[in-house]
Amino acid sequence: MNGEIIAIGDELTSGRVLNTTSRYAAGMLFSAGYEITAMATVRDTPEEISEALKRAVKRSDFVIVTGGLGATSDDLTNEVVGETLGYPVVFHSEVFDRIKARLSEKVDEQTLNRLRKLAMLPTGAEILNPEARMAGYLLVHDDKPIFFLPGVPHEMKELLTEKVIPRLALWHGNSAVPVKQKVFKVFGLGETEINRLVSHLEEEEDSRVRIGYYPVFPEVHLSLTVLEENESERAKIFGQMEKEIETALGDSLFGADDDSMENVVGELLRKQKNLIATAESCSGGLIAHKITTVPGSSHYFAGGVVAYSNDLKEKLLGVDPALIVEHGAVSPEVAKAMAVGIKTKTSADIGLAVTGIAGPTGGTAEKPVGTVYIGLATPDTTEVILCRFSGDRWQVQELTAVKSLDLVRRLLLGISVKAL
Amino acid sequence: MNGEIIAIGDELTSGRVLNTTSRYAAGMLFSAGYEITAMATVRDTPEEISEALKRAVKRSDFVIVTGGLGATSDDLTNEVVGETLGYPVVFHSEVFDRIKARLSEKVDEQTLNRLRKLAMLPTGAEILNPEARMAGYLLVHDDKPIFFLPGVPHEMKELLTEKVIPRLALWHGNSAVPVKQKVFKVFGLGETEINRLVSHLEEEEDSRVRIGYYPVFPEVHLSLTVLEENESERAKIFGQMEKEIETALGDSLFGADDDSMENVVGELLRKQKNLIATAESCSGGLIAHKITTVPGSSHYFAGGVVAYSNDLKEKLLGVDPALIVEHGAVSPEVAKAMAVGIKTKTSADIGLAVTGIAGPTGGTAEKPVGTVYIGLATPDTTEVILCRFSGDRWQVQELTAVKSLDLVRRLLLGISVKAL
Repeated sequence: MNGEIIAIGDELTSGRVLNTTSRYAAGMLFSAGYEITAMATVRDTPEEISEALKRAVKRSDFVIVTGGLGATSDDLTNEVVGETLGYPVVFHSEVFDRIKARLSEKVDEQTLNRLRKLAMLPTGAEILNPEARMAGYLLVHDDKPIFFLPGVPHEMKELLTEKVIPRLALWHGNSAVPVKQKVFKVFGLGETEINRLVSHLEEEEDSRVRIGYYPVFPEVHLSLTVLEENESERAKIFGQMEKEIETALGDSLFGADDDSMENVVGELLRKQKNLIATAESCSGGLIAHKITTVPGSSHYFAGGVVAYSNDLKEKLLGVDPALIVEHGAVSPEVAKAMAVGIKTKTSADIGLAVTGIAGPTGGTAEKPVGTVYIGLATPDTTEVILCRFSGDRWQVQELTAVKSLDLVRRLLLGISVKAL
Repeated sequence: MNGEIIAIGDELTSGRVLNTTSRYAAGMLFSAGYEITAMATVRDTPEEISEALKRAVKRSDFVIVTGGLGATSDDLTNEVVGETLGYPVVFHSEVFDRIKARLSEKVDEQTLNRLRKLAMLPTGAEILNPEARMAGYLLVHDDKPIFFLPGVPHEMKELLTEKVIPRLALWHGNSAVPVKQKVFKVFGLGETEINRLVSHLEEEEDSRVRIGYYPVFPEVHLSLTVLEENESERAKIFGQMEKEIETALGDSLFGADDDSMENVVGELLRKQKNLIATAESCSGGLIAHKITTVPGSSHYFAGGVVAYSNDLKEKLLGVDPALIVEHGAVSPEVAKAMAVGIKTKTSADIGLAVTGIAGPTGGTAEKPVGTVYIGLATPDTTEVILCRFSGDRWQVQELTAVKSLDLVRRLLLGISVKAL
């Protein structure tokens, strides 16, 4: 079954809001075995909504439409759907009753009238989740399912996973192509370099195997997709390709699928019962933030210091002021002292420290913007790695944080630590 | 002039990569006065690229195509364009010469052959930036400009702003609708509440005025667009509406357009010559990270501590261990002690501290996940605000950080500080 996704909203076509819902829907549906042939984003105008809907219904087996279901004046989806496909909107009193019942406070007549709009749905609309504020609905047209979902990401995601995907799986004539897929996540190698490393695998010209490359700054992701009806054959091809890709990418391959650098590192720290602490200058707390996005990180993260000023490097990390005077705050000596300082202060096993120049100002001929020293103190030794990143402030901070975590990963795996 | 954007790539339709380039292009073009009527995302297959291209060329005045220009095997744009529109690809030797000249190291014959693909462009293609690695090109078809740009965000952005928009501005018959637009950024009010506050402005039914509402978690953005040929009339309508919206939104309106909470707060701190320092528990460094994304933040940010463990709250912030034993780490007493502690340690003017439960575990009946105490110590006083956020770990951390910064904003502006 081929599907299509239509996102509706001026906020999307004017670039004010990033369309994350279509991407999420595409990812979920793809994983469930459906091909998404196209994604369209159109303005809140009847003509364009209508045109996109007609085109999608004609050429695809199912359609997901997001946005424009709300009570504000720019929400037009229901009316347009009704007119375009021939299911005039009618007042769904049971929907309105539930909306009223869920109101947490008394509202005035005017607001209530506005909310009536949420219950004006096309004839034949089947409510997906009566309990949700934005209930979503299914219309069957020409024997094809069309799902209408809210544009607000978390409301849409819930309906998609809990209602849409189960309904699609039961759809008669369903023929999801059996797909096995894995995304390999790489840090420290460029797209062309990766392409070169795995090019011998692409030359085999097996149409059942697809390899794609996607820079997702500062990482590069490589996807392997195997489309094959026969399950054991599919598993066999997949297993071979997987092994070859892993060999080709070597230790720059840090994870797969939903892995992030921070959860890979977190898992290693947890398993090896190591406690880490961070001392950050130019990365301004980004490393600590990344570590603590992972639930349960309190088990292996003691905490950290953002020592933006020299004063704080001395007061909170015990860095000798003479070191800063002699070598400058951005120096291997200070990176080392910060790493040892945070490790000692927090009684952690690993002290991770960074000092550098994120820009846009502060660079010199000798130490240009992007110069970053990363210090790594362990019970046995302290290493300092010099990195010369390029990019704007955001990119330098991001590279600094991911590179730092990658160094911890390499340290814990006992593999070589190398500067970018 | 109406335009359309086509993004090409399996990585987009399979949901592996979020399409940020189309959004960026839409935003830039909209600001420059063009209407983007639709955005399409299609797979790397000749049929779908061809169909999208034909449709766009037919109904729009200009088209922006991104992606599929690279040297890897899944890049098909050039060939498909050539076939679809009738401009067969030919080898552009001057393009290839520049590619070779830019190679930083010697490459083998095989790699060189692969790079030849970058120079196989449709007949009549006009290179946009010969100096760039991914040069992009312009094809004029039926007297309409079609711009082909790389899919990698920063490469695409550079070509768009430096080459495409200037070229479009000079296009004969150009009729960009004169638009004046502003995005109002709000924190602490929901979309429906904002809709209610400004509904009287929408009832005027002036077709030249458009108001839109966009939740951009954890903020809500309201956009005002005035379309009117006459410049002074446009400015007049805009000025009136702007004033009314500002009145309606009150002090929950924290900024406009490119403002972020962190740069608004940064600007206030800089102007008032205040130094701030942070002590974070459940937000794990996110507040420090947000503050330090702003260039020049070292002028007003002393630094901070991520005191994830109780031990660190004592060692780095001087919190009395008895307080933690008596009231728990998540308590107003500890929030206050942390705020005072970081202020004292760093000699800052303002100490901002948070302690709470980000989840998914750690909640109790009395202090469920989402319970956060924010402490704010100033030279005069120390306030503690209790917040009860809902959402997942990411949402609670994000709400904690933005709410904390909003409290600093309110403090510096002398307006009321209220819990969510």
